[in-house]
Amino acid sequence: MKLTFSFSKRSGLIALLIGASALGVGLVTAADTESDLLARAKQVFRPLPPTAHVDDFPHSAARVELGKKLFFETRVSTDGRTGCVSCHNPSHYGADSLPRSVGVHGVLMPRNAQTVFNTPLLVSQHYGGNRVSVEEQAWKALTSPFAYGNKTFAEAEAKLHTLGYKPLFEAAFPNEKEAVSAQNWAIAIGAYERTLLTPAPFDQYLKGDTKAISTDAKAGLEKFINYGCAGCHNGSTVGGQSFQKFGLVEDYWKATGSVEIAHFKGYDKGKFHDTGKEEDKWIFKVPQLRNVAMTPPYFHDGSVATLDDAVRVMARVQLGRQLADQEVRQIVAFLGTLTGEVPKQFKEAPQLPVAAFQRP
Amino acid sequence: MKLTFSFSKRSGLIALLIGASALGVGLVTAADTESDLLARAKQVFRPLPPTAHVDDFPHSAARVELGKKLFFETRVSTDGRTGCVSCHNPSHYGADSLPRSVGVHGVLMPRNAQTVFNTPLLVSQHYGGNRVSVEEQAWKALTSPFAYGNKTFAEAEAKLHTLGYKPLFEAAFPNEKEAVSAQNWAIAIGAYERTLLTPAPFDQYLKGDTKAISTDAKAGLEKFINYGCAGCHNGSTVGGQSFQKFGLVEDYWKATGSVEIAHFKGYDKGKFHDTGKEEDKWIFKVPQLRNVAMTPPYFHDGSVATLDDAVRVMARVQLGRQLADQEVRQIVAFLGTLTGEVPKQFKEAPQLPVAAFQRP
Repeated sequence: MKLTFSFSKRSGLIALLIGASALGVGLVTAADTESDLLARAKQVFRPLPPTAHVDDFPHSAARVELGKKLFFETRVSTDGRTGCVSCHNPSHYGADSLPRSVGVHGVLMPRNAQTVFNTPLLVSQHYGGNRVSVEEQAWKALTSPFAYGNKTFAEAEAKLHTLGYKPLFEAAFPNEKEAVSAQNWAIAIGAYERTLLTPAPFDQYLKGDTKAISTDAKAGLEKFINYGCAGCHNGSTVGGQSFQKFGLVEDYWKATGSVEIAHFKGYDKGKFHDTGKEEDKWIFKVPQLRNVAMTPPYFHDGSVATLDDAVRVMARVQLGRQLADQEVRQIVAFLGTLTGEVPKQFKEAPQLPVAAFQRP
Repeated sequence: MKLTFSFSKRSGLIALLIGASALGVGLVTAADTESDLLARAKQVFRPLPPTAHVDDFPHSAARVELGKKLFFETRVSTDGRTGCVSCHNPSHYGADSLPRSVGVHGVLMPRNAQTVFNTPLLVSQHYGGNRVSVEEQAWKALTSPFAYGNKTFAEAEAKLHTLGYKPLFEAAFPNEKEAVSAQNWAIAIGAYERTLLTPAPFDQYLKGDTKAISTDAKAGLEKFINYGCAGCHNGSTVGGQSFQKFGLVEDYWKATGSVEIAHFKGYDKGKFHDTGKEEDKWIFKVPQLRNVAMTPPYFHDGSVATLDDAVRVMARVQLGRQLADQEVRQIVAFLGTLTGEVPKQFKEAPQLPVAAFQRP
């Protein structure tokens, strides 16, 4: 089967966000009034949109429902226990709390798993940004030796047939001759993931309710903008919209005692491993910070266990700034306002088709 | 720490049930009237009780809530991804749909995982019956090389402290000096598991609502009693109350092409592996049949993928009977009336303490 599938479409929203952020970060003032701070925050951030669905990937209730089942389905993997849900767990805010995730057959993955919430709004997927959309991510995971471990897409499709998914695919993709396909697997999972947005107190604040976040959180927000954090962590997802060198002013790997990773034959050099370009060395996608308080450990290697320490490390290696304890506390209070609720449709497990897994 | 903990208390209910079943099975008649069949069914089976809580293990809301978190907690295992929930999954009716389950570090377990629903009502736990209660099962799993993989209980307890469980244990076990303990881990998980009962249409039938199950199901029920299935599969859990030789009239292993299992150094000989007694060779706990339609594959080795085939195999190797297709269909229809609903408190994932897993 020829895979003519393209997952590359994105809206022009990002350029717009980056423009706004550059503007916001420039305005460093001593002490903002309540309304000044809100005005500056509005220049840098924006509330989550009501949906992450896009015209490129039409959705329907049947498609979202199928996508949810597929997200929780582990029998398409070669060990029968690995799926999206293995690394993106409802009990851990859509992440897994492990420094580095565990993939099919227990293999240790090269990087930390980030939360799945709000990810369709990011510029691309993975720390290296090597997946342009959540659909491409779900699609390629099927044949990844770290994820589902199938040799071919056909192998995965055969399992979907065996498990009895055909009627569900046909309902989700009516009028398609071959509804059960790896591409439709990806589109359905994307349709579901695009519902997993987590509006938080900070969105209420951005919409004008200045009582929605605490005084400490506002002090933290002010520093977050003034110190330059918002230079990268901006937009509706507070990050995840751009790439940046990790360890701008100080070596991250030395600062944190981060270890070499066999998969990378040494330190993890970020985007470089995907492109091979010298200029991409140490370049990583800036993580979104929504729900960051709920998803330790931190960074691409999960080497830092607490948010306090993660804030300290970032200030130091990216901005050359040593934060006082009170500053850390305030910034952490601000980051806490990015915690939304685990979506109901994620918290509640779906009933999966009743069929025995066939061990290869 | 000395483990003076006893998990061995059980009520006298079982002897009573076995007595009733012997009575019921004897009454083989040609064609029952509606009320005859119900009367006979009531002799052999009984509705699920409203609760499986027992005086030996006092429970409280805080204890059940803690137990739920611990059930879904995988960070107490040595790979960070293994817990009760790994084999007892909300998307698979409390089982995992795998022929044999996968344990810590991806190890293949020697036997199939059975559903966790209604298990506190069984005579004992595991196919070999080597755990007298769900509490003992949860307790010993902590140091099992197949389950959590800890070397000692102290290792598991240290992780519970690191993960921040102390206040939750103290709320669940007030006035205890060392609330965080492997014993309390087990008691809390038991308190939660004892809520996971799944009343089904068959219970309505047993309570006198003869319209609660279909004509086919009633025909199946009649055969289920008359052919002798109910000789072992009886009581409130329709099995799980006694032990039996597997392959009474024909060798199960030959009949199904079941394979040798490295862990058992050959075929799985059931209870023998726990007791070493010759009389325990090929003796297994009779599985409960509640929710059996939802939990393929079947038998201790998961070697049979469909319920139709499982019914055929059982009739053949235990009762020497070759079932006609219609009989299989009817018995399967009866077994379908044992399907309850996945309990809400199992379907909805708990939020676990926010803390990074520390890889050893």
